[in-house]
Amino acid sequence: MATPAFQFTTKAIIATFGGTLIKLTHDSAVLGCTMGANVFFPPGAFGRSTPKVPVIWYLAGLTCTGDNGAEKGFFNYWAAKHGIAIVYPDTSPRGSNHPGEHDAYDFGSAAGFYLNATKEPWSQNYQMETYITCELPAALYSYFIVLDGSRVSLMGHSMGGHGALTLFLKHPDKYKSTSAFAPIANPSLSPWGEKAFSGYLASKEEWAKHDATELIKAHRGRDLDILITCGLADEFFIAGQLLIDNFVAAAKEVGRENQVTVRYAPDYDHSYYFISSFAQEHVEHAAKHLGAL
Amino acid sequence: MATPAFQFTTKAIIATFGGTLIKLTHDSAVLGCTMGANVFFPPGAFGRSTPKVPVIWYLAGLTCTGDNGAEKGFFNYWAAKHGIAIVYPDTSPRGSNHPGEHDAYDFGSAAGFYLNATKEPWSQNYQMETYITCELPAALYSYFIVLDGSRVSLMGHSMGGHGALTLFLKHPDKYKSTSAFAPIANPSLSPWGEKAFSGYLASKEEWAKHDATELIKAHRGRDLDILITCGLADEFFIAGQLLIDNFVAAAKEVGRENQVTVRYAPDYDHSYYFISSFAQEHVEHAAKHLGAL
Repeated sequence: MATPAFQFTTKAIIATFGGTLIKLTHDSAVLGCTMGANVFFPPGAFGRSTPKVPVIWYLAGLTCTGDNGAEKGFFNYWAAKHGIAIVYPDTSPRGSNHPGEHDAYDFGSAAGFYLNATKEPWSQNYQMETYITCELPAALYSYFIVLDGSRVSLMGHSMGGHGALTLFLKHPDKYKSTSAFAPIANPSLSPWGEKAFSGYLASKEEWAKHDATELIKAHRGRDLDILITCGLADEFFIAGQLLIDNFVAAAKEVGRENQVTVRYAPDYDHSYYFISSFAQEHVEHAAKHLGAL
Repeated sequence: MATPAFQFTTKAIIATFGGTLIKLTHDSAVLGCTMGANVFFPPGAFGRSTPKVPVIWYLAGLTCTGDNGAEKGFFNYWAAKHGIAIVYPDTSPRGSNHPGEHDAYDFGSAAGFYLNATKEPWSQNYQMETYITCELPAALYSYFIVLDGSRVSLMGHSMGGHGALTLFLKHPDKYKSTSAFAPIANPSLSPWGEKAFSGYLASKEEWAKHDATELIKAHRGRDLDILITCGLADEFFIAGQLLIDNFVAAAKEVGRENQVTVRYAPDYDHSYYFISSFAQEHVEHAAKHLGAL
């Protein structure tokens, strides 16, 4: 066998909740830089090849890295109970230093929006969709063969909730399920989304291809069973950044209203205090689809 | 009734795990500065006066504020289940700007060691023992009368584990129980402790009064039932900063070996990945003593 082209460097191996969290770096050809990622292995799985375990990808929001969900999301506790691994990738390429890349919290670094940019200079390396759906999973599943690439679910928060919804709808054969915490559900019509799409995409015609509310209208085939939770004290929900009702209306428009469950949680905000409170429900939603409940 | 001398400013009210976390600031007369603190109220308790709920104080370690335990410890999840409030105070006075106060991670700001300094200039305001055991609890219990000041337990991590052990042994009538994650258990003989004690205390004769291993030897009266958990991959345990075995030996010396339970956890480190993994056990230990199990 040839040496794998893709190599990981293990920066830390950390015991947590009876399982193992590893902190990795690797050189991404797609993104043209060194990337960090965290992977949680449930009890007994790290360093073994079998029995294979299903995988959840947690996509974080603006300003985050793979650390936020791993440290504050409380997902590892529930994943340990159900024998599920969790991948916590980063939220953008790092270190490319395009003009303006680090000037705003909602564009450029830590704000990759999980899409493939088509506008210069971002199109050179802001290819987060390919990275998250192809390059990184292929590398991880061949390097850590205990990870079962045939049983994978998505979840994410805010910008990562947008990622979880859109990548699932774009690549329904890759994922068993998706769910989202306070997602940017109709970015074409929200300030965050408009800034990102106009910055990363060469023409406005492309926007619909990256907007969950448009994608669900175009979806054909399999049932979806999408779970969304959002706090009613979420300042970004209140400010019209999330537009979850538009996503629900689009689902209804195509007769899929029974395939989208939205839970509005009184009093909860947009922070990890909110996310961790509903981690159990989202991990169990994925576990059901992964055959791990 | 007179206006209370002690006032809190509420900076945020955050829903989490069915309860409420509030972020406070207040002016401390003892410390001579404005201090922050977080308080978690279990479901139904915030804004009410009855039924009263018992209280855990979580004392954080070097470099921390009241945020670390609140965000990463997952104590709130377990406290919610048992109907217990948690107070997360800060780790030192803030903003006094003594020479050298902010130069090291292990002395001065964020490193108050939960003692009353006797050496200038620290003796002016580094009075964390009085703040944690008298000023802040008296103020909190009179301001939030749902908090039951007659049912209070301590816990803490590292420097805060030292605080949880020593404040319990110094003030056994104030607390129902204590427990510690990776505590600095014999600071007189560890580098962290030697630096802190020689910096904060006017004479070496005072050291024993602030060292858990010496305090347990001098303890008279009530049984202790102290729980300590420490990871065997904890770099500070390995480096001899914690010296938990010395505390156990001291307990044995005075016939209290059955009153100290130490659990060494293979593979775990010193981080919140470790703490959160054993939060359940420590909250349940406190709950038992608080009549809340």
